[in-house]
Amino acid sequence: MKMYGNWRSAAAFRVRIALNLKGIAYEEIFLDLDAGDQFKPDFLAINPQGAVPALFDGEGAPLTQSLAILDYLEETHPEVPLLPAGPRARARVRSLAQVVACDTHPLYVPRVRNFLMENYGLPRERMLEFLRNAFTTGLRILEKRLSTEAGTGRFCEGDAVSHADLCLISLWIGTGIFGIDTEPYPTVKRIADAMLALDAVARAHPLRQPGAPAP
Amino acid sequence: MKMYGNWRSAAAFRVRIALNLKGIAYEEIFLDLDAGDQFKPDFLAINPQGAVPALFDGEGAPLTQSLAILDYLEETHPEVPLLPAGPRARARVRSLAQVVACDTHPLYVPRVRNFLMENYGLPRERMLEFLRNAFTTGLRILEKRLSTEAGTGRFCEGDAVSHADLCLISLWIGTGIFGIDTEPYPTVKRIADAMLALDAVARAHPLRQPGAPAP
Repeated sequence: MKMYGNWRSAAAFRVRIALNLKGIAYEEIFLDLDAGDQFKPDFLAINPQGAVPALFDGEGAPLTQSLAILDYLEETHPEVPLLPAGPRARARVRSLAQVVACDTHPLYVPRVRNFLMENYGLPRERMLEFLRNAFTTGLRILEKRLSTEAGTGRFCEGDAVSHADLCLISLWIGTGIFGIDTEPYPTVKRIADAMLALDAVARAHPLRQPGAPAP
Repeated sequence: MKMYGNWRSAAAFRVRIALNLKGIAYEEIFLDLDAGDQFKPDFLAINPQGAVPALFDGEGAPLTQSLAILDYLEETHPEVPLLPAGPRARARVRSLAQVVACDTHPLYVPRVRNFLMENYGLPRERMLEFLRNAFTTGLRILEKRLSTEAGTGRFCEGDAVSHADLCLISLWIGTGIFGIDTEPYPTVKRIADAMLALDAVARAHPLRQPGAPAP
């Protein structure tokens, strides 16, 4: 497979982990988001949304939106499974994943940050209050649910990695970048640490991708 | 089934349509979001996120997040199907649905609007610039994709209603409430009109739910 991505993209990170865990060979094409590559005609013809990831599986149209791609990979490459078997457990995994991918991550992407600065004239430091509110709201909900719901195990749902863990770690990575205090979220931290210990996650890590700053 | 919802919630609207199309009997319990019912301990025990919808299917934990609920309903009540059969078509439906449910709707929910007004001291009219930007970005992407991608038919994917259409109409309904110019989005409008003509959608319409203002 071939994926347009960017080392910094939380959504591309999720997809890389799934590809690694399922043992699917892929090539990642680095899109320079700072240079605005995502808004150039060549890429807009691939994804009119001007966003990564965009995944090509052989011929055929590009696949976009990280959660849609994760479900596609699950349906076309069921091994190793990243969703549990029962409908209720699957619904819980998807709900946890969507706390991140719907209600948290879209609030802190560059286009939102830029709109706040450009439209309202906010300096970067004040704009970041919006971003930090998104992070802490998402982390608080995850912590509350993961620390109280019966389904939680070594990972978000039992002892197997699922879409919820891919989303969790894609959020967690941002806490370092944006200086978010992680002390109030011990259960999220425990699961993030378990994820980071996996080779498939380590290889997918943002800082190990093309274009990332040197360590 | 029993659903905690609110007439105004775009996410609850999506779930109501699915329940109606699948012929699943349900009772909706009105949660007064203006009175802050979603943040009272009784409801936070159901959904720590303080958000609707929350669906109960018999005994067992509440189901939350509208897209997760739609997939749960699809898995437990496959008739009438609201996802196409092939993985690529399913991925396209999910991607279109997520343009709305991940990248558009979460940007204009009350908690975001309130944060902008309270934290930055923006008057309502200036806050609405953020909301209108979210709407027009989402609508522009949908229009571009639906008017150019081969999969589009009478509905978003071919001639059968899918999750993408449920999300599309849940966004469309907001254009009237927030005074968004819909003229640049003729393909979105055509599909929205086809949706509104369905009895299952008409019965799920926000203005026909408990708590809605009189026409």
